[in-house]
Amino acid sequence: MPESTEHLVKSFDADLKKLRDLLTEMGGIVESQVALAAQAIAERDAAAATRAVEADPQVDALEREIEQFVIRMLALRQPMASDLRLIVAALKITGDLERIGDYAANVAKRSIVLAQYTLPFSLTGLVHMAHMVQEQLKMIIDAIGASDTAKAIEVWRSDRVVDDLYTALFRELITYMMEDPRNITPCTHLLFIAKNLERIGDHATNVAETLYYAVEGEVLSEARPKGDTSAYTVVRPKE
Amino acid sequence: MPESTEHLVKSFDADLKKLRDLLTEMGGIVESQVALAAQAIAERDAAAATRAVEADPQVDALEREIEQFVIRMLALRQPMASDLRLIVAALKITGDLERIGDYAANVAKRSIVLAQYTLPFSLTGLVHMAHMVQEQLKMIIDAIGASDTAKAIEVWRSDRVVDDLYTALFRELITYMMEDPRNITPCTHLLFIAKNLERIGDHATNVAETLYYAVEGEVLSEARPKGDTSAYTVVRPKE
Repeated sequence: MPESTEHLVKSFDADLKKLRDLLTEMGGIVESQVALAAQAIAERDAAAATRAVEADPQVDALEREIEQFVIRMLALRQPMASDLRLIVAALKITGDLERIGDYAANVAKRSIVLAQYTLPFSLTGLVHMAHMVQEQLKMIIDAIGASDTAKAIEVWRSDRVVDDLYTALFRELITYMMEDPRNITPCTHLLFIAKNLERIGDHATNVAETLYYAVEGEVLSEARPKGDTSAYTVVRPKE
Repeated sequence: MPESTEHLVKSFDADLKKLRDLLTEMGGIVESQVALAAQAIAERDAAAATRAVEADPQVDALEREIEQFVIRMLALRQPMASDLRLIVAALKITGDLERIGDYAANVAKRSIVLAQYTLPFSLTGLVHMAHMVQEQLKMIIDAIGASDTAKAIEVWRSDRVVDDLYTALFRELITYMMEDPRNITPCTHLLFIAKNLERIGDHATNVAETLYYAVEGEVLSEARPKGDTSAYTVVRPKE
């Protein structure tokens, strides 16, 4: 390889590494937002909720930085085929991470309202769901750092479990609302919290699909496991 | 300009035009999904709902086509600065359109469940919101076709109105739930329908911001109009 080409290749590899580092940095912040949101629900911790919300501008700034960096890379390095796939994948992943951060902030905001209520039921199911989603996210961010497609597949498969948890919670919360109208406002927020967690799981799954495609060059699967059937759910009050 | 450069420029312009055509095609399908979903709610039209859901694979296929086309453009044309901005913008817009299609399909699915209920209240507010969002979407897709940033600003401003409609609907629906437990299941689906419509408006606003940045080279505004305060909403049952 001529010296100049080798030099170009080296700086491109350095750029790819920087891109990966930026993504894992953004992923790390988003992951901590989800962890804080989970803590805010589990322990009625308003300080954790506030920290989750306050991380949002940092996430948005990193999203912009990654976009700018990608545009510079495309302009200066004029990368080919498989490298382009990686770069376009990074752009998609950054979009998913930004959405995850938004959902985590929304969960945190709602947890502040929830803290005003004494709930006559336990939040174990919801907290369990939050921890599962947190684990999914941690795993997919590790997978980005190591281009680990086996981990990506694992995340992708676990989405089904999160969806099932969500569908069960949906029914449970509607039942509480029917039992006592005082449960309606808190349960509505809990419904949206559960939905947001389910969406975080979906975006983690998107990242898994994008990473798999970027690394392997083929689609993980045409039909992802679809488990959220709550759009069709009917719960009737007891007569 | 040397003949060969002129030729390259011409084919690049042709590619940009094709990219814009693909985006407006995708936008057109997504717009019709939202229109069908609105009709499904307003007229309890299950056939319209089914057509909205069935359009989803077509939208996904267009998203993939646009991504492949962008990667090819980047590899073959090695575009510079402002052109790169347009191409990266196209990728972002395609992501937003895909999400809008998903939300429209979810609204349509829920409308099928709703049709099983005789509702003791009118859906005027929700139908009005659906039509507003539909109008926003139509406008932003026209704006993409014409690189019309004035229209993009108009869409961006109107998001505030959609958010206010959503917050009002949220309170109204919770009140119906409190009045009669038989309203709880349908109102929960209505809450999610309203939330999905609000999200469609958000994504139309994202597209407006992306389009503005792609055409003008500067950010529309750092702080978008934020009107959805429902995450903080507390409605208490009458004593």
